[in-house]
Amino acid sequence: MKKYLVINGVNLNMLGIREPGIYGNSTLDDLENNIRKKADELGVEVDFFQSNFEGEIVEKIHSAMGNYNGIIINPGAFTHYSYAIRDAFGSVKMDVIEVHISNIHKREEFRHTSVIVPECIGQICGLGFKGYELALEALVCRAE
Amino acid sequence: MKKYLVINGVNLNMLGIREPGIYGNSTLDDLENNIRKKADELGVEVDFFQSNFEGEIVEKIHSAMGNYNGIIINPGAFTHYSYAIRDAFGSVKMDVIEVHISNIHKREEFRHTSVIVPECIGQICGLGFKGYELALEALVCRAE
Amino acid sequence: MKKYLVINGVNLNMLGIREPGIYGNSTLDDLENNIRKKADELGVEVDFFQSNFEGEIVEKIHSAMGNYNGIIINPGAFTHYSYAIRDAFGSVKMDVIEVHISNIHKREEFRHTSVIVPECIGQICGLGFKGYELALEALVCRAE
Amino acid sequence: MKKYLVINGVNLNMLGIREPGIYGNSTLDDLENNIRKKADELGVEVDFFQSNFEGEIVEKIHSAMGNYNGIIINPGAFTHYSYAIRDAFGSVKMDVIEVHISNIHKREEFRHTSVIVPECIGQICGLGFKGYELALEALVCRAE
Amino acid sequence: MKKYLVINGVNLNMLGIREPGIYGNSTLDDLENNIRKKADELGVEVDFFQSNFEGEIVEKIHSAMGNYNGIIINPGAFTHYSYAIRDAFGSVKMDVIEVHISNIHKREEFRHTSVIVPECIGQICGLGFKGYELALEALVCRAE
Amino acid sequence: MKKYLVINGVNLNMLGIREPGIYGNSTLDDLENNIRKKADELGVEVDFFQSNFEGEIVEKIHSAMGNYNGIIINPGAFTHYSYAIRDAFGSVKMDVIEVHISNIHKREEFRHTSVIVPECIGQICGLGFKGYELALEALVCRAE
Amino acid sequence: MKKYLVINGVNLNMLGIREPGIYGNSTLDDLENNIRKKADELGVEVDFFQSNFEGEIVEKIHSAMGNYNGIIINPGAFTHYSYAIRDAFGSVKMDVIEVHISNIHKREEFRHTSVIVPECIGQICGLGFKGYELALEALVCRAE
Amino acid sequence: MKKYLVINGVNLNMLGIREPGIYGNSTLDDLENNIRKKADELGVEVDFFQSNFEGEIVEKIHSAMGNYNGIIINPGAFTHYSYAIRDAFGSVKMDVIEVHISNIHKREEFRHTSVIVPECIGQICGLGFKGYELALEALVCRAE
Amino acid sequence: MKKYLVINGVNLNMLGIREPGIYGNSTLDDLENNIRKKADELGVEVDFFQSNFEGEIVEKIHSAMGNYNGIIINPGAFTHYSYAIRDAFGSVKMDVIEVHISNIHKREEFRHTSVIVPECIGQICGLGFKGYELALEALVCRAE
Amino acid sequence: MKKYLVINGVNLNMLGIREPGIYGNSTLDDLENNIRKKADELGVEVDFFQSNFEGEIVEKIHSAMGNYNGIIINPGAFTHYSYAIRDAFGSVKMDVIEVHISNIHKREEFRHTSVIVPECIGQICGLGFKGYELALEALVCRAE
Amino acid sequence: MKKYLVINGVNLNMLGIREPGIYGNSTLDDLENNIRKKADELGVEVDFFQSNFEGEIVEKIHSAMGNYNGIIINPGAFTHYSYAIRDAFGSVKMDVIEVHISNIHKREEFRHTSVIVPECIGQICGLGFKGYELALEALVCRAE
Amino acid sequence: MKKYLVINGVNLNMLGIREPGIYGNSTLDDLENNIRKKADELGVEVDFFQSNFEGEIVEKIHSAMGNYNGIIINPGAFTHYSYAIRDAFGSVKMDVIEVHISNIHKREEFRHTSVIVPECIGQICGLGFKGYELALEALVCRAE
Repeated sequence: MKKYLVINGVNLNMLGIREPGIYGNSTLDDLENNIRKKADELGVEVDFFQSNFEGEIVEKIHSAMGNYNGIIINPGAFTHYSYAIRDAFGSVKMDVIEVHISNIHKREEFRHTSVIVPECIGQICGLGFKGYELALEALVCRAE
Repeated sequence: MKKYLVINGVNLNMLGIREPGIYGNSTLDDLENNIRKKADELGVEVDFFQSNFEGEIVEKIHSAMGNYNGIIINPGAFTHYSYAIRDAFGSVKMDVIEVHISNIHKREEFRHTSVIVPECIGQICGLGFKGYELALEALVCRAE
Repeated sequence: MKKYLVINGVNLNMLGIREPGIYGNSTLDDLENNIRKKADELGVEVDFFQSNFEGEIVEKIHSAMGNYNGIIINPGAFTHYSYAIRDAFGSVKMDVIEVHISNIHKREEFRHTSVIVPECIGQICGLGFKGYELALEALVCRAE
Repeated sequence: MKKYLVINGVNLNMLGIREPGIYGNSTLDDLENNIRKKADELGVEVDFFQSNFEGEIVEKIHSAMGNYNGIIINPGAFTHYSYAIRDAFGSVKMDVIEVHISNIHKREEFRHTSVIVPECIGQICGLGFKGYELALEALVCRAE
Repeated sequence: MKKYLVINGVNLNMLGIREPGIYGNSTLDDLENNIRKKADELGVEVDFFQSNFEGEIVEKIHSAMGNYNGIIINPGAFTHYSYAIRDAFGSVKMDVIEVHISNIHKREEFRHTSVIVPECIGQICGLGFKGYELALEALVCRAE
Repeated sequence: MKKYLVINGVNLNMLGIREPGIYGNSTLDDLENNIRKKADELGVEVDFFQSNFEGEIVEKIHSAMGNYNGIIINPGAFTHYSYAIRDAFGSVKMDVIEVHISNIHKREEFRHTSVIVPECIGQICGLGFKGYELALEALVCRAE
Repeated sequence: MKKYLVINGVNLNMLGIREPGIYGNSTLDDLENNIRKKADELGVEVDFFQSNFEGEIVEKIHSAMGNYNGIIINPGAFTHYSYAIRDAFGSVKMDVIEVHISNIHKREEFRHTSVIVPECIGQICGLGFKGYELALEALVCRAE
Repeated sequence: MKKYLVINGVNLNMLGIREPGIYGNSTLDDLENNIRKKADELGVEVDFFQSNFEGEIVEKIHSAMGNYNGIIINPGAFTHYSYAIRDAFGSVKMDVIEVHISNIHKREEFRHTSVIVPECIGQICGLGFKGYELALEALVCRAE
Repeated sequence: MKKYLVINGVNLNMLGIREPGIYGNSTLDDLENNIRKKADELGVEVDFFQSNFEGEIVEKIHSAMGNYNGIIINPGAFTHYSYAIRDAFGSVKMDVIEVHISNIHKREEFRHTSVIVPECIGQICGLGFKGYELALEALVCRAE
Repeated sequence: MKKYLVINGVNLNMLGIREPGIYGNSTLDDLENNIRKKADELGVEVDFFQSNFEGEIVEKIHSAMGNYNGIIINPGAFTHYSYAIRDAFGSVKMDVIEVHISNIHKREEFRHTSVIVPECIGQICGLGFKGYELALEALVCRAE
Repeated sequence: MKKYLVINGVNLNMLGIREPGIYGNSTLDDLENNIRKKADELGVEVDFFQSNFEGEIVEKIHSAMGNYNGIIINPGAFTHYSYAIRDAFGSVKMDVIEVHISNIHKREEFRHTSVIVPECIGQICGLGFKGYELALEALVCRAE
Repeated sequence: MKKYLVINGVNLNMLGIREPGIYGNSTLDDLENNIRKKADELGVEVDFFQSNFEGEIVEKIHSAMGNYNGIIINPGAFTHYSYAIRDAFGSVKMDVIEVHISNIHKREEFRHTSVIVPECIGQICGLGFKGYELALEALVCRAE
């Protein structure tokens, strides 16, 4: 059975609390439940990981090599400066899709640029929690 | 029954011919068939429009108001300079998702910026033809 | 009798529909009626042209040479990138005034710059529909 | 009877002397007479103020609050750096139109930007002395 | 017999009218006659196309694939922003030479950059109508 | 008894009138009373100076040398361009603290930079009228 | 009793050791003692936290919500790039004041910009250890 | 007898006091005496003017037209932003030389640019008080 | 006996796995063995530390003060944004050499800049594992 | 008989050796033979000069005045920074065409700009050795 | 007897020939005669050196150390990029004045910056040949 | 026996004289002796070349092809603008290491960038004369 890893980066444990005007009231648990349901529909397994530590995310990525068929990552604010995470993806050469809940291109200038996306196969932004499900669908579809 | 419009912008009639190293060998017809199949699955209707004329795309968007539940657009090269298309979306205030077949963030500098996406709800890039299907799914899901 | 041409560029057919918060509820017809009334007061003739096609505007400008005493243009979003329209004015060497309904300097950064105005005699912005009437008055006054 | 204030900023007392190639031979007196004539036609009152001191202009703006129905200002070179005048307009929240005799967009780079216009309702440039009359007309028209 | 396509872009129908100080008094007809004469000398066929519509130029390029041995293009003002034309050349992978009548490096800053030339084999500028003839000679010479 | 000078720059006489959304409804008098009360608590003397003239502020600074133990300045809009005030502080080599009522880093881009602060010992911003009192406390504390 | 949290970021455990030319010889203990004394005077409670890990600071901020009346933070070098800490403050929506011991505007270019301050109510810099005390006073005063 | 005007701008009344490390201990009086002695040697008359008010300098320049054979100006910090003084020189079209006591190119970045010098015949910097004498010599020599 | 610390930063535990096209197939163990052999030749002791956590590297640097005669660091991606590590070196004032295995100047733009090297005595890049040995030699040689 | 000078700048003696992937295998001798043959066809004389010294090229240009009807120059890397060569052409006011063998706009950023071309009548790039022949043809044609 | 060296850089042997609109008709010989006459008046010796080779100028500067009391240099176009000449002055630590015949701040953008002047004591520009004489006077005066 | 070439660029003949604060008191002879000793230890031959002429360095590089196993270059100030030297290395495709005696990243902004290093295998900076020895060791080690 195919297995995927969903990584939520810094501050995403605050979903439902943080800036509900932008992110809505649902929590990280709600999000993970949504994705799990989708995984069930797609007949794949999915693991979750959230961390506010760049270093933990880097090491999670390292350890994912050989254990997962792909990664979905919402790096949170790390998106805009963590060359470390970018290079971690460069090391493991896996299928990665970057997801953002909000449309980062409608917000502050600094949020328009991802330093990580050049090491991903693609990016989905602005589609809310749904974006994660679509990313999963895309990864599964690639592997077929 | 919900109805969606898929707009393919400049040079996308050359799909399968243009830079197959980047875009693969499938044609615009193949793409539209994929999307139609997905629409059937989702129980929605879908119309297609391709044009190499910015003005035609602008007017298609104008005429979409009231006739469609949402728009999927791959503006092609217009992505990077057509403030006219951006403003057309500003006029009609519809749900729009921007799609790019390739990961624009891995290519030339000028392709990293979309002047249109701030008037969309979100963007999907790098996921090939699949990106259009996911965009349709997202639009339908929003409307539920 | 002196004759003037009023060109409204891309998306201006959506006046009254597009972003009423910025542009108000009056339509392009309303605008043209206002200007016609002003033209009557000033004892001059006025023709109208609206297009969403840069190419049509360019050719309208070409054909204006010798047939009009001046041009009023609101290029819409073309203002910010259409070097083609700029050069069209460079070709015909007529009296041109650029008009914007809203104060473009209060809006997004990209709207602060006009690539066309260096080929015009001047610019009026932020004065609503009234701006067109004032532009007409200015053109007529120059010709006296 | 409605009353308007016309402020001419730094070096504009040199009109007719300063760079006649750009500004023509008419003097500040000529300009003020033109505007007064226009005011008579429009049935409004108009006061004039010229100063080469940024501080005097700031204080004139402060004192205008409650005493005038609107302000026309040609800040001269202050246009390009006087955030103090900008903030003075921010304080009094009156209807202001910025006027430039020449087309500032045809001249040196630094003249293309006004730091004051974001606090105005609009701007007229390149239409010579006529620009002031049109600005007056626009202000009167708004107040109707 | 080898066949070449010469595309003249926006405003080039105004040759002999537009800015004669820069472009001289000869017309587009004169230019095409010069090139035809040169084609005769070189023993090749040549077709001409002029358009003020970016979309028409894009589609002309698409249709040229398989029908011509090379293309000479003077995009006019499109040179500086038409990523659409750039991508059209990317699609058809033909031998293209970009020509400019004037020395674009002596004129306004924005004219110094061509967004199209990276998809061409080379560029000739500043050599007047002669530049087209030399471009034709170069294309023919390559094909030998 | 230690003596301090509080300088309020351009437009600060409009406090309570100017942009109450940002600055609140209290006036310059209120502000000065607050500071005087604090001075009494601290057992020091305090003088006030407000001017809309850069030149007056410069000369006040010159004359402060030897007469005050320190200066608190809110330069208003001069903050962003008055190298003259910066150099005045460079001349007198006194203890100076720059204060801003609002958080300048949350507002327009141009307000993020102070050209004066490199000649001060420090800066307080965003803490309302309280910021002046804290600055006074800091100056007094340094002198102990 | 009101309770406040004081966060010292990266390298601030080296106070008294690190660059004494800039920061003086007093240690983090000395600093915390100073602040505690001030807290006693103000009749409030104060907790301290120092970490060299961005992730720990982010989580400390998360956990502060509901437990403190406000936060004082000196992020150290994180000031200039930690969008993660910025977003953490965006999540908890508490009263925060950023403090810097030295005048960051007198030092290297990169130290002039804080990516965190737009999510704070204000900033104090250059006033040494005293700056923390003033920040505490300002927070307490707001809460009154 | 030829007559010249020497204008010293903002903060130059502080000569001998201001940053003696850069400007030395001599005062404005010393400077003016040096220049007067030089004027005597050259057989010309010289008047002096110092002001910390941009507006006064602008008006002094206006009034100089017809009364002096040339102007020497050290604008002080106005050098770097006073487009008003620049335009004042543009108005009067006199021979002007800009002088700086220190080598402005060895100091802070913002001091490297003069917005005034394009309206002067030339500039002397870094040669101390001597620079004024040389400027006078140059002006007298031009007039011969 | 002299003792040196070798710090390998983020992702360097992936040596031999990560981008072998750039870094080769040897592992971190191989690298450390090479260095140890060199240390033996030079008659010095050497300790190793690798971490993917910026905070751990910062604290390792703090604790190195007084315990090592110098540090060799390859910060990995931290090179380009970790002002925290830069300041850690600023705190301890030790002899530090920055090493990069690949020639960072041949790779992506962002890799050309090190924010850490201004606090080091020097940098070696592009010389593979050998670069560490040379750095050790340089440190030992300085200490002699 | 008309006489032309062909200058090949720095490193062009390495033609056929240097980067054959970009420049091919033919040598400078081959190039000069090609041009000589073309000169014979055109009935003109041609001299050749190659130097790796900017100073020698400058002096060759000086000495060309009056002795040649025009110059063809491929400055090599001097193209991008030799303002000295630019000014040499400014001095002699001759007909000059700049030639590049490769399409400089497809290569590194720094190669996109020529500091010399503003003093030439035009530029040919990307057409290989043929570019020199076309330049010669253009020069001869101008002189007719 | 004091001895000074006057260095004229690239293209200055073309004085009187090069761009007489900017530099006038007098030659390098005329210039040197003027300076020699001035030297006689001042009772000092003067040597001249002109070269179009950056390397020769660098070596002339090296050899000047100990043999001259100061240097006057007009580097010509080297002004704008020769960090080599800048460093040569850095090596010899002599009194140097940079002279430009024309006002470089009125000309092309690239001429506004000198990379050499930070190693000089000052700069004179725009005062024609007279500038050299004034520079000599300044050097002699310093040495007194 | 392997043979290496050491090139010292502009001003490096002034070693021991030039800025001893930065470079120390040892001369170029001392440097070359150090390197020769190292070469002896390594059992390789080494030749030296110093020139202040960019052209001579370019030609030395050309002539090195086939005669040396590698090159060590300290280009001096040429580092920052000599695209000619960069291209010379591009021509010969040899193993090159760039060396700087001082840490160029601690000095003026312009010294932070090398235009030559992208054509080298690596760079060593800040390690004094020792840097050359290490570079030699690295080259020899590569060849083994």
